[in-house]
Amino acid sequence: MAPVSVRDVEQAGERVSGFVVRTPVLPFLGAALAGDNQLWLKCENLQRTSSFKIRGAYNAVSGLNEAERTRGVITYSSGNHGQAVACAAHALGINAVIVMPEDAVPLKVEATRGWGAEVVFAGHTSLHRQERAMELVEEHGYAVIPPFDDRRIIAGQGTAGLELIEQLPDVQEVVVQVGGGGLISGIATAVKARRPDVRVIGVEPEGAADARDSLRNGRLTTWDRIDTVADGLRTSRIGELNFATISELVDDIVTVTDDEIIEAMALLATQARLVAEPSGAVAPAAVLFGRTGLAGNRVLAVISGGNVDPALLASSLERSSHRQVAPVHAG
Amino acid sequence: MAPVSVRDVEQAGERVSGFVVRTPVLPFLGAALAGDNQLWLKCENLQRTSSFKIRGAYNAVSGLNEAERTRGVITYSSGNHGQAVACAAHALGINAVIVMPEDAVPLKVEATRGWGAEVVFAGHTSLHRQERAMELVEEHGYAVIPPFDDRRIIAGQGTAGLELIEQLPDVQEVVVQVGGGGLISGIATAVKARRPDVRVIGVEPEGAADARDSLRNGRLTTWDRIDTVADGLRTSRIGELNFATISELVDDIVTVTDDEIIEAMALLATQARLVAEPSGAVAPAAVLFGRTGLAGNRVLAVISGGNVDPALLASSLERSSHRQVAPVHAG
Repeated sequence: MAPVSVRDVEQAGERVSGFVVRTPVLPFLGAALAGDNQLWLKCENLQRTSSFKIRGAYNAVSGLNEAERTRGVITYSSGNHGQAVACAAHALGINAVIVMPEDAVPLKVEATRGWGAEVVFAGHTSLHRQERAMELVEEHGYAVIPPFDDRRIIAGQGTAGLELIEQLPDVQEVVVQVGGGGLISGIATAVKARRPDVRVIGVEPEGAADARDSLRNGRLTTWDRIDTVADGLRTSRIGELNFATISELVDDIVTVTDDEIIEAMALLATQARLVAEPSGAVAPAAVLFGRTGLAGNRVLAVISGGNVDPALLASSLERSSHRQVAPVHAG
Repeated sequence: MAPVSVRDVEQAGERVSGFVVRTPVLPFLGAALAGDNQLWLKCENLQRTSSFKIRGAYNAVSGLNEAERTRGVITYSSGNHGQAVACAAHALGINAVIVMPEDAVPLKVEATRGWGAEVVFAGHTSLHRQERAMELVEEHGYAVIPPFDDRRIIAGQGTAGLELIEQLPDVQEVVVQVGGGGLISGIATAVKARRPDVRVIGVEPEGAADARDSLRNGRLTTWDRIDTVADGLRTSRIGELNFATISELVDDIVTVTDDEIIEAMALLATQARLVAEPSGAVAPAAVLFGRTGLAGNRVLAVISGGNVDPALLASSLERSSHRQVAPVHAG
């Protein structure tokens, strides 16, 4: 399968514009940073559905033909991609079916139904959900909108890369979280086409570092045991299409610990006044805790989403308020 | 004293640009709103020092002449204005003295010192602080940067009004919190000059509604007992200059309860992914809970700041997570 080109991303940009929010790039002004880097944040937590996933989902759903639209769409992600497909379908007047695990969080089920989508429950594993989705496709002819290893999805996520290069033209490094790899593949495609000199760094939780291993081993590597608080990045391996793109375009992949992720969530809330979900805080965490190995650079980190359990955010804030650490102001 | 003109605000805009952040205006996409209004948020919580106060403070401090700069500046606000003056002075290489109450929150003291300012403690009331500041002015010749009833401060705060009219040209109402009245005076000056048809609505906490009474009574009215969670709006009466501007330009002033303010903080965090302090949530609360009496309008509410005690934010989130209310999506 041919890799996604910057032209694909530009076309996605035209398709999603007017619906997808051109999210702000904000300077992180709170604290002096490791290695004297300066940090900007691309705020996909302020995106429609509070996650970048709407970019790919809307690009894919809006590209369907009339016959496909009439039959409706299906996906088998219980997380942000499921909500994004439901939202995109709702906006375009298309029926959507979202297959979720039987033990799905009630709040996520309600949020998905809030977009008018039909929720179907199936087992507890992603394999169960995918099998059930395929049965329903067989029966009803739904169009499948997969979460990441899909050219339309990658091109859609890449629109964030086109925006950020326009918004921060003198950026030197772009730091992006890696789950299935769709977001970083899209962003790297856009960024490297426009500015080959800008470094693109991936970040994974220490407990789900399959993409780092894949990049370093030079072959797609699967992790059987995944353990991280960052629920959006609990993938055992990245997509094949994404692996090809990452191998070609991404400069390095680094990791952060769960403690650093939770701490970064609290720092974003108390110093940047932004609510990030654990996965969303992963790329900023790498810069805040000096994991990218860079110094004296203008760095942009993506906050990929903000769909955090309020109780988890509250507990991260309580930890942080007990420390009573005041901000340290740079220069 | 002549009122502040839109030309003063434009000049302030030139002076503060490059230092003050042009904060984003974001659509509130979370929930269906009372009266079928659509809501946008002007995010001064994402401003430098996490509050709009830096606009006026930087405008005032940067306008000082060489002799004044050499002697240094002083203010007697313990809150966001104190931090803003400290930050502006730091950026301009000027010494700053901030007079704070003896029982000031340690975190605020540290944040102020983090900008290199000298903190002087004086008594427990604002009168004590003002007296001590005047003694120090007598002794050292500091330039006073007052928190609100000052033409340079009002003009600086008004730069938010110039921005928001450019950012959301088809806005129909602008909703702004009222403490001392500097923010709404500046914004009303800018908005009404550019777009006389746009309504400007003030919002106060129910327990500090002196400006509403002043507007309705047609004379400056003082409240002796102030009681609200919105610590930034605990003023007994607005400034005289501000009263003149508000009387001329503001269409109405409405109130919200403390419960609505706390609830709005949780809604902003869980649905808009933005951290607001209680005062910052006051204007959005009025729209979220239908207090402005408007229907079917494009409304912009200002989030004036984000300097909230993490423990208070955490407790508002815990209340909200126990309710487990899913968002209701509009149209």
